[in-house]
Amino acid sequence: MKFLNDIADLDPKLIDQLLMLAQRLQKHPEPDALKGKILALLFLSPSLRTMTSFQSGMARLGGNSFMVSPDMAIHNLELEDGAVMDGNKAEHIREALPVIASYADILGVRAFAKQESLADDLDDKFFNKIYKLIDKPLINMESAIQHPCQSLADWKTLDELTIPKKEGKFILSWAYHPKALPLAVPASTLKMATKRGMDVTLLCPEEYILPDAIMRAAKDLANQNGGKLSISHDQKSCMNGADIIYAKSWVSPIYYGRNSEEGEIRAKYKNWCVNDDWFDTNSTCKFMHCLPVRRNVVVSDSVIDSERSIVLKQANNRLWAQMAVLYHMLLGV
Amino acid sequence: MKFLNDIADLDPKLIDQLLMLAQRLQKHPEPDALKGKILALLFLSPSLRTMTSFQSGMARLGGNSFMVSPDMAIHNLELEDGAVMDGNKAEHIREALPVIASYADILGVRAFAKQESLADDLDDKFFNKIYKLIDKPLINMESAIQHPCQSLADWKTLDELTIPKKEGKFILSWAYHPKALPLAVPASTLKMATKRGMDVTLLCPEEYILPDAIMRAAKDLANQNGGKLSISHDQKSCMNGADIIYAKSWVSPIYYGRNSEEGEIRAKYKNWCVNDDWFDTNSTCKFMHCLPVRRNVVVSDSVIDSERSIVLKQANNRLWAQMAVLYHMLLGV
Amino acid sequence: MKFLNDIADLDPKLIDQLLMLAQRLQKHPEPDALKGKILALLFLSPSLRTMTSFQSGMARLGGNSFMVSPDMAIHNLELEDGAVMDGNKAEHIREALPVIASYADILGVRAFAKQESLADDLDDKFFNKIYKLIDKPLINMESAIQHPCQSLADWKTLDELTIPKKEGKFILSWAYHPKALPLAVPASTLKMATKRGMDVTLLCPEEYILPDAIMRAAKDLANQNGGKLSISHDQKSCMNGADIIYAKSWVSPIYYGRNSEEGEIRAKYKNWCVNDDWFDTNSTCKFMHCLPVRRNVVVSDSVIDSERSIVLKQANNRLWAQMAVLYHMLLGV
Repeated sequence: MKFLNDIADLDPKLIDQLLMLAQRLQKHPEPDALKGKILALLFLSPSLRTMTSFQSGMARLGGNSFMVSPDMAIHNLELEDGAVMDGNKAEHIREALPVIASYADILGVRAFAKQESLADDLDDKFFNKIYKLIDKPLINMESAIQHPCQSLADWKTLDELTIPKKEGKFILSWAYHPKALPLAVPASTLKMATKRGMDVTLLCPEEYILPDAIMRAAKDLANQNGGKLSISHDQKSCMNGADIIYAKSWVSPIYYGRNSEEGEIRAKYKNWCVNDDWFDTNSTCKFMHCLPVRRNVVVSDSVIDSERSIVLKQANNRLWAQMAVLYHMLLGV
Repeated sequence: MKFLNDIADLDPKLIDQLLMLAQRLQKHPEPDALKGKILALLFLSPSLRTMTSFQSGMARLGGNSFMVSPDMAIHNLELEDGAVMDGNKAEHIREALPVIASYADILGVRAFAKQESLADDLDDKFFNKIYKLIDKPLINMESAIQHPCQSLADWKTLDELTIPKKEGKFILSWAYHPKALPLAVPASTLKMATKRGMDVTLLCPEEYILPDAIMRAAKDLANQNGGKLSISHDQKSCMNGADIIYAKSWVSPIYYGRNSEEGEIRAKYKNWCVNDDWFDTNSTCKFMHCLPVRRNVVVSDSVIDSERSIVLKQANNRLWAQMAVLYHMLLGV
Repeated sequence: MKFLNDIADLDPKLIDQLLMLAQRLQKHPEPDALKGKILALLFLSPSLRTMTSFQSGMARLGGNSFMVSPDMAIHNLELEDGAVMDGNKAEHIREALPVIASYADILGVRAFAKQESLADDLDDKFFNKIYKLIDKPLINMESAIQHPCQSLADWKTLDELTIPKKEGKFILSWAYHPKALPLAVPASTLKMATKRGMDVTLLCPEEYILPDAIMRAAKDLANQNGGKLSISHDQKSCMNGADIIYAKSWVSPIYYGRNSEEGEIRAKYKNWCVNDDWFDTNSTCKFMHCLPVRRNVVVSDSVIDSERSIVLKQANNRLWAQMAVLYHMLLGV
């Protein structure tokens, strides 16, 4: 695999293989597997889990990594083609990225959506451009519309909890957040759950239905894998019998790039904070979130501190899933 | 050992064992000892020695480390329980810390005193709270009131200079500094020297006597280990026959949390800068400081650049002492 | 070798040996060569290539590194001797540097020119001072007037392209840039090319001829190694038959330290941007630059995106050249 990108494009057999490998590496350390190998980590957007889990994972396999972030003491990066660079940006991504890649055996890049044009972000315009600049294996560590590492970790988490593939009821729920957040996680999550063949419901206010391209892709995956996809705007009815509620906030696609308008719409839904009222008395439904999460805004303390919450397990599975990805991409097995 | 915290609580036999191990690792490198092991370093306060010596020490033993600091490109951390996170803080320490810990085999955390409530800081309220969030071995890399790594390094330094335990005369002297500094280093140092059984004098202006809880703990350690503890406000008489003067600035406990008042008191003592006049003509007294130190404010160039000064040896011993701690905590030997 | 500093001072046999070693390590990895060894990287000035290539190189050889930068969460460093440190600088380089060095086996330091006094910067006053503070091998990662790592990488690049030593025509050309840049790269490059025995031309506006001390040193190197050195202010005639144009911007030595005056002079030469017009129709002349480069200011997109450009090869050779330096300095072979 040269490019870990869209979870929808991964061969289901490869997913099985990666998750088995993840489990093997978790149980049986291989501290010499990637000896002498170098992972370059380029963060054009902030990170905590991704940054630390990739560093840890590479080191656990005997390799090493280096990290580049514009917040470090490096020159500002120019990202636009054709720019006359007479301002405050001293280096172009067209040099910086291939140079960094040339010091490494594999590269991870993070660059969140610019949220100016929905079409550009759905096309992952920036990420697909930089992909052409390098000839080393590339890991998408979250782009405008993809977050495959999160989806692999989430899939592993669902497997470990023995949430059924075919009949497991998976709710992806929008939640309130003070900022307009990107679509990468909800898009990847919807595709992950439908690809896993689950009974998936997108639960959100009407303005927050994911873009058509994402909904169609998820529908196709549901059809191919024996799953279902529906939409609901009603928390109470929708949550009945759910195995998983995966909460996340995201921007309204209808008002994409129009921040003040979108903010007004969003403010109507401050009550979309997952709390105990969402769950039936005897519900065993688990709570998932990719983190970071705003407590008492996206989810109440009472839910995230309860046994329902598997957010720490999800986060920990980032480590093992990514180790499997590194192992597979570097060693080809 | 699951938690390296208060130097007072360490079994004297364990201290001997750790310092012998430190010496052994200094002489006989073991570059495979911690192969595949990961140290997570969380800095909620600034660092130079701690950050670099832990990274170096872990690597010298064949392990690896990753570092997280709020000054890096990570989300602001919310530290207060029950917060409604609708402001600029995107992640709670209750998620961030366990996640980081789950990627590592051992964790080091630094969080300086908030200097709002003396009682809270003496109780190490924040540090004891975060300790409960994780299930991995934890190293206190300086909290509100503890700095055990510094104390182990200092103890090793005293041993190497063959400063006698029983009759060695140890002066912990307050010094002027433009800022109100925390109590962690003076508290740990006083406990270290009394626990080592030395003849210890706390030398300071009357407003700068350490809090009762610290003085009592140090007195107990002196009693248990055949040492002495006294207080002096007079530099000249006190320095007579001293083997060590350990300089450090700290906030007045009387004016704790009241910064402008405390600043007025402190300003009276600008002449508390350790210089040549403090030493008798033939004195062989050594000068110690934990660093960073403000030259010509806390200590004169003439003293710190003289042969009296053993501050670089102290700093270097951080490396070996911490390697012993990592080795012991991870391998149990 | 205890100090990698001036390319002019390196024994030509050692250069050959280092470049052969670089090639060997590129072809035949030695992931255990520097096991347990630690490289400290101190950046007092920004970096991208240097920071990442040293980290990667050390790790590829089985060693490890740690990085210190004032932009990280460390105390501000005081650099002036005799300072009364009652301002915002909490630690002196006289402590910080020896401490960092004591945690490492080898040290790399970067500190750009202050551009206040030409004499001080030509003497590399700051760098020669800090050299005396440590007793570990030291690598100059770019000082006021030296950049030996870049020159070794450039030499390797010229060798690989089989650019002839004796008759190869090498143009070092000044280029426009919105800021007054240091002299380290042009000084090192001129010495590298003359030391390699090439037919070297310094191409620049009259105000931008390098300082006498640099010109004399380069002339001596040309004489000793069968090369030539001349000066030209005319792009067209000068480029005739050139094998290499190495572009770089730098401050006018005449107006050194007088930024607004220098800026007015520099503004006259905005047309010194290397573009297609500079090259004869059939010219095979290659384009070099140390990076970072400002596109469409220093060089046009059309040139840097063409086959002429070997800037990525240069940057990649930083890795291998520096690995050879580390290997040689730490293992003595």
